[in-house]
Amino acid sequence: MPKPWATLGIDLHLEPAGPGLRRGLTDALREAVRTGRLAPGTRLPSSRSLAADLGIARNTVADAYADLVAEGWLTARQGSGTRVADRAVPPRPTRRATRQREPGRLPYDLTPGTPDLSSFPRAEWLRAARRALDAAPNDALGYGDPRGRTELRTALADYLARVRGVRTDPGQIVVCSGFAHGLKLLGELLRARGRRTLAVEPYGLDAHWDLLARTGLRTVPLPADRLGPRTEDLGDLKDSADSAGPDGAADVPAVLLNPSHQFPLGGALPPDRRAAAVGWARRTGGLVLEDDYDGEFRYDRQHVGALQGLDPDHVVYLGTASKSLAPGLRLGWMVLPPSLVTEVARLGGRSTGVLEQLALAEFLTSGAYDRHVRAARLRYRRRRDALVAALADRAPEIRVGGIAAGLHAVLRLPPGTEEPVVRAAAWQGLMLHGLSRYRHPSAAVKPVDALVVGYGTPPDHAWAGTLDALCRALP
Amino acid sequence: MPKPWATLGIDLHLEPAGPGLRRGLTDALREAVRTGRLAPGTRLPSSRSLAADLGIARNTVADAYADLVAEGWLTARQGSGTRVADRAVPPRPTRRATRQREPGRLPYDLTPGTPDLSSFPRAEWLRAARRALDAAPNDALGYGDPRGRTELRTALADYLARVRGVRTDPGQIVVCSGFAHGLKLLGELLRARGRRTLAVEPYGLDAHWDLLARTGLRTVPLPADRLGPRTEDLGDLKDSADSAGPDGAADVPAVLLNPSHQFPLGGALPPDRRAAAVGWARRTGGLVLEDDYDGEFRYDRQHVGALQGLDPDHVVYLGTASKSLAPGLRLGWMVLPPSLVTEVARLGGRSTGVLEQLALAEFLTSGAYDRHVRAARLRYRRRRDALVAALADRAPEIRVGGIAAGLHAVLRLPPGTEEPVVRAAAWQGLMLHGLSRYRHPSAAVKPVDALVVGYGTPPDHAWAGTLDALCRALP
Repeated sequence: MPKPWATLGIDLHLEPAGPGLRRGLTDALREAVRTGRLAPGTRLPSSRSLAADLGIARNTVADAYADLVAEGWLTARQGSGTRVADRAVPPRPTRRATRQREPGRLPYDLTPGTPDLSSFPRAEWLRAARRALDAAPNDALGYGDPRGRTELRTALADYLARVRGVRTDPGQIVVCSGFAHGLKLLGELLRARGRRTLAVEPYGLDAHWDLLARTGLRTVPLPADRLGPRTEDLGDLKDSADSAGPDGAADVPAVLLNPSHQFPLGGALPPDRRAAAVGWARRTGGLVLEDDYDGEFRYDRQHVGALQGLDPDHVVYLGTASKSLAPGLRLGWMVLPPSLVTEVARLGGRSTGVLEQLALAEFLTSGAYDRHVRAARLRYRRRRDALVAALADRAPEIRVGGIAAGLHAVLRLPPGTEEPVVRAAAWQGLMLHGLSRYRHPSAAVKPVDALVVGYGTPPDHAWAGTLDALCRALP
Repeated sequence: MPKPWATLGIDLHLEPAGPGLRRGLTDALREAVRTGRLAPGTRLPSSRSLAADLGIARNTVADAYADLVAEGWLTARQGSGTRVADRAVPPRPTRRATRQREPGRLPYDLTPGTPDLSSFPRAEWLRAARRALDAAPNDALGYGDPRGRTELRTALADYLARVRGVRTDPGQIVVCSGFAHGLKLLGELLRARGRRTLAVEPYGLDAHWDLLARTGLRTVPLPADRLGPRTEDLGDLKDSADSAGPDGAADVPAVLLNPSHQFPLGGALPPDRRAAAVGWARRTGGLVLEDDYDGEFRYDRQHVGALQGLDPDHVVYLGTASKSLAPGLRLGWMVLPPSLVTEVARLGGRSTGVLEQLALAEFLTSGAYDRHVRAARLRYRRRRDALVAALADRAPEIRVGGIAAGLHAVLRLPPGTEEPVVRAAAWQGLMLHGLSRYRHPSAAVKPVDALVVGYGTPPDHAWAGTLDALCRALP
């Protein structure tokens, strides 16, 4: 009688003995089935004869067969032996893992929204992480409070009160994976209450409008003028709420604002419009969602405090480490009216790793965060000054709009030149965004030609070259 | 006015400061209630006055009160302050509370779902984090690929193929913040396609059913018998889909299964039911969501490979570091059919910090993960063996159900005894879960009395005492 296994012509590449033998046999057989070398319906040799053939223990073969039967690769039926299972779909070859390159970037990059990643304080962060993990109780590594670690919420409550005038205590803070995640949870909250509409500023990020749309909320832009969004008109916007009467005339339930530094236009909301937003929220039971994405960075004066300080019961404050440290940390925070904390935490707490949370808490309480922000503020301020000076020198008719703050500036261009400038810049190896991509599709404001220059993005060594490339691309 | 606390005459033996303060206060108060020094109905001083009395922060007291309310030792009602809870069962004579106790927990804890947090490899993890951050390009700290870091997805593709028989490449993996987060995204995906129903097993976690309900999906339990859920009946379940015809007779779009180790019942899905699930998915275009939460831990044989290996186009594999390392990392992963990757990543990628992702990639590729899992497997196997032996000795009529795997076991109890046993255990300082809390409200299966014993939860030093407390609590 021929050896049945030899007949099948499979080379198993088995280790001769030891604990890896069974696994090796199982893997080899699975691979042979998967790649089609053993066709569906093929009858396998008995465990006794394969064991003899391979010179191994019969149990090893029987166990391997049993594993593969359990996984569904083989079938075993009384009287018909062990066969390769029938499979409707042809097996796909296992592809080798390909090392994918990061999406290609041009050599010069002024895309807004990212800080200088080369200045991330790696050594200090690792030190903080080590200290924090050394001090953490075992309990910290569990599922824990859906709002986030108490150490971080306590440190944030102190920091936000001190630096941004936020009125809170640790119990009202929910840690999240950055601003977008927090916004998504708030959108879900509004939808769960049957609301369908959210007011936004006429310029902003389409990624935010899209994620709100995916939660089921329509975004309607506020009217705006050169001072910013007209919050005094909030009362005119209506929700097409599920719960609204037949005339659908309920007030919009919430508005998303950048009161301290509008993105991308760069203005600060005037005091009377801050008051109007809070007054509207009080009057209608509405919510102001305050996106304070770069509240650490103001260069000409002390930054205006958070709107939340005016009315902690009607403003949700959203902050992030994405601009002050790095987006890769995925660390953001919401300061919520007490009545919303439990519901928001239930919708999506426990998103961010405890070790990052503990490291940030240590970073904040040790003063390392303040030191880092001071150094970063100086760096970005110098860049902004250099940008203003270079433009005054080389393109004097172009003005830098907005307040001296944050990581980006808006350069107004002659009508009709935005798109050609962006395209020309790309040909020179400079990645640039025009203002038009930030305009809400339903915005009533007149489009203007401008660039949104993220001067925070380049590493220090590339800054001079990037600025030069920008000046060369301007009309 | 007399100091109210002094009136109560309790000596708290508190550490004067530091992170142990809240825990110390919580323990001392619990002990006072347990031993009857604080009688049921006694009104406690306000957190403000007790804080002043003890010279500590008010929040510390408020937190301790909240912990004890959550544990049921105290009650808090608007207008009547915080009082010692009424208790139906008189307290047993007290053992001394252990010093290592975690806040808000009883001294002995067999709650399932958490590994032994004291065995988290802190030093190795920090080493991996340092090496990973040293090697990472600046770019890694940016917003990055919504699927997660390529280093981690590459390491996972290799690891999952090797250990769990998963067929994938790095492009099909989306990193998420744990299983629940992945499930939420998949629920959103189904809802975005107008689907309304998801099939589940009759026993599982209410937290999962609740989060699916919040995405707008109704969960319908499969019929089941002693072999597990009857996946051959999947075709009988219907979706009340938005897009269905007037008879609403579309197939359910997806089923959530634990094929390798059912939680909590502990069985493995038999081969023919694995095949039936995949066959149903192919026939109807449905999806199997495979929850492989503890695939690293099988003690009696090599673990059955992932169901995903049978059909990568119809099975979403979900894995997590929450059982193999620690829930606090907030690291999970989905292996998706190629057609779903972009949509799922858009719904909620970028949830987990890059540094944790890079550290896990380094942990996997350096072999530290395998070493840790081997040590953990041995630890949990010994505990399971000790549990089985102790029961054979001290409660021989109680059987341990399910396969020898994972971090939990099911102990069948005489009818009508589950709730009294759980309550008696709590009074002895042992936190235990009965099986009934894991039963889906619409499950057609007959309820049985049983305990779900999370033998992975205690730290090593507490294991012997915990096992002893369990045996004493049994009928």
